[in-house]
Amino acid sequence: VKRGSVSETAIIERLERLLGGASSRNVVAGIGDDAAVLRSRRAPLVWTVDTSVDGVHFDQRWLSPEDIGARSFHAAVSDLAAMGARPLAALSSVIVPSTFPERRLLALASGQAEAARTLACPIVGGNLSRGGELSVTTTVLGAAKRPLTRAGARAGDEVWLLGDVGLAAAGLLLLRRRGARRVPGELRTALDVCVGAWRRPAARIADGLRLVGRARAAIDVSDGLATDAAHLGRRSRVRIVLDEAALGRALRPELVASSALLRVTPLSLALSGGEDYALLATGPSGKRPRGAACIGRVERGKGVELVDEKGARRPLAATGFDHFRAPKRR
Amino acid sequence: VKRGSVSETAIIERLERLLGGASSRNVVAGIGDDAAVLRSRRAPLVWTVDTSVDGVHFDQRWLSPEDIGARSFHAAVSDLAAMGARPLAALSSVIVPSTFPERRLLALASGQAEAARTLACPIVGGNLSRGGELSVTTTVLGAAKRPLTRAGARAGDEVWLLGDVGLAAAGLLLLRRRGARRVPGELRTALDVCVGAWRRPAARIADGLRLVGRARAAIDVSDGLATDAAHLGRRSRVRIVLDEAALGRALRPELVASSALLRVTPLSLALSGGEDYALLATGPSGKRPRGAACIGRVERGKGVELVDEKGARRPLAATGFDHFRAPKRR
Repeated sequence: VKRGSVSETAIIERLERLLGGASSRNVVAGIGDDAAVLRSRRAPLVWTVDTSVDGVHFDQRWLSPEDIGARSFHAAVSDLAAMGARPLAALSSVIVPSTFPERRLLALASGQAEAARTLACPIVGGNLSRGGELSVTTTVLGAAKRPLTRAGARAGDEVWLLGDVGLAAAGLLLLRRRGARRVPGELRTALDVCVGAWRRPAARIADGLRLVGRARAAIDVSDGLATDAAHLGRRSRVRIVLDEAALGRALRPELVASSALLRVTPLSLALSGGEDYALLATGPSGKRPRGAACIGRVERGKGVELVDEKGARRPLAATGFDHFRAPKRR
Repeated sequence: VKRGSVSETAIIERLERLLGGASSRNVVAGIGDDAAVLRSRRAPLVWTVDTSVDGVHFDQRWLSPEDIGARSFHAAVSDLAAMGARPLAALSSVIVPSTFPERRLLALASGQAEAARTLACPIVGGNLSRGGELSVTTTVLGAAKRPLTRAGARAGDEVWLLGDVGLAAAGLLLLRRRGARRVPGELRTALDVCVGAWRRPAARIADGLRLVGRARAAIDVSDGLATDAAHLGRRSRVRIVLDEAALGRALRPELVASSALLRVTPLSLALSGGEDYALLATGPSGKRPRGAACIGRVERGKGVELVDEKGARRPLAATGFDHFRAPKRR
C-alpha cells in the first residue's frame, strides 16, 4: 500500500501487514516505497489490469468483503492463465467510501491476501483512495516463455474447454431470484455449487500452463462462452463452431439441475454466462491436454456458430453480460 | 483496453486507436489480448499503481478531460522517477459514469496518450468499466539497474530538491478562491505558472535517472515536502533537517508573488503543498547533481525539523494534503 495517498493511520499499517506478509524470491522490495522492485526475468513479461466496481461487477448483498477481495484477485489473475503465464506479483488499488467500515476493508484485504497465497502471487504494493464508490483494481505481472494469445487459432483446430461454464451465471440468477430459500432438499447441493462458483471463482493457472506447447490460441471465459469465442475468432480471423452435444456433455450435472429450477436451459447459461473463468483454447487434436473437453472445431470464415446433433447450424450472437452497457443494478 | 469488460462499440475501438498508437521495442503485444506482453529485461523491474478519483484527486470544474488524463499519468510515472527508473509501459483502468459524455472520455484518453508520448511510456492495455464515479488508475512498469529507495539516507547526507514545490498548491488555492479574475495584470504570469503547475505536473524521469549513483535515497513530493520528507526519514531511520533560508532560495519567484495575493507564506505552501511531483533526495555533498538545490541535511534521530537563519529549530508536523482523511470536496 503506497503511503503517499493515505493517512498514516493504524488501518494502513494493518493493511500492509495483511497484504505484505507473503514473500517470494521474485520480490526485491515490496510494500513501503514509491514502487515495488522485482527481480528481472528472462522470459517475456505478461501484464494485465482488471477492475471490479460495486453494483457493476459485484454485489455486496450476496458477497462478503472476503469474497469481493478474493474474487477480484482471481478475475485479474485469470487473464494471465489465458496467456499461459505464471504470475509473479500483483498490485492492488482500492477506492473506499468513507461509509465503508474499517473492519470490512480489512476483511476485503484478507480475501485478497488469501487469493494471493493460493495463486503464489504476492501483493507487493498498492494504493488506497477515498471515493464515493467501492472498487478494486488489481494489476498482475507474470512471465511466460511462450505467451498464448487469442490470435493463433487455425482452421482444423479443435476447440477446448478447461473448467466449468454456466455455473456462476446460474448462481447469480439463483441469488437474484432468492430461489435458494424454497428449493427441494435434493437440489441444495447443486445450488451451493453454483452460488459457490459465482462467489469464489478460481483462476486456472495450472490449466493455462498445461496449454503451453499444445494450444495455438486461448482466452478466459469472463463474459460468456459465445462472446469470448467471438473475441478469439475475430483476433484469429477464423470461425468457431461449437458442438451442442459435446458442450452439453461437458456441463456439470449441478448446472443441469439448477437450470431446471431456474426455467432456463443449461445451454443458454453455458453460452451467455460469464465469470466462471474457464479457459477456452484451440489446438490440433493430437495435442489436446488431459482434462480439456473438445467442444467444437475451428473453420475458415468468421463468427461463432452452434451445430446441433443433426448438423443444423445457427449463428450465435455474442450475448454475454456487458458491464459497460448494463445499467447499474442497485 | 481489455475488451472483456466493455461492449464492442465504436468507443472502444476509438480508445484503442488513441491509446494503442505508440510502439516500442519493449512491447511484444499491446492492446487487444487478455494481457500485454513485454520483452524481458535484464534490469530489475520497478512497478507502481496510482489512482485519481473525481472530487478527491482532481476537480472537473478546473481541469479539462485532457488535463485529467495527462495529470493522472504523470502522477503515476512520478513514482518511477523517484526510484531512478526508466518507464517501459503502462496500463490504464478507467471507471466511467454513464453520464460522462463519450467525447470527454476520448479527450481524457488523448491526455493520457499525450503524456505517454512525452514520457516514452506506451499504454499497452487497460480496462474500461461503468461506475458511478469517474476514476483513472494507472499502473506503470519500469526498469532500474540500481533502484533508489526511501531507505538509504545517512546522517551527514545533504537533502536535495529537484523541481519546484508549492506551485501546484498555490494554483489550486487560486482556483478555489477564484482569485485569478481580479488580480493585477503584473501578477497574471505568476498565477498562470501556478495554475499550470497544478493542471499539468510533469514526472521528472530525467532527474530521477541523474540521481542514480549519486543519491542514497529519494521520494517524489506528492503529499507535501514536510510529509514526504517524513516518509523518507522514517524509512531511513534518520532525521531530516530542512534549512529555511536555503529552501526559500529554491522557491520560484512566481510562488512568492502568488503567495502575497493568497495571504499565505511561500514557505507554508512549499512545505505542505503536494502535487508538484518534485523529487526529494539525499546524498553526499560531493555527489550533488547539477540542477539540484541543497535544502537541508540528514542527521541521526527522527522526524523533520526546520532550522531558521539564527539556528533555531522547530519540528514540522506532516501537514500535507491527506486524500484519505479529507472529505470529498463536492
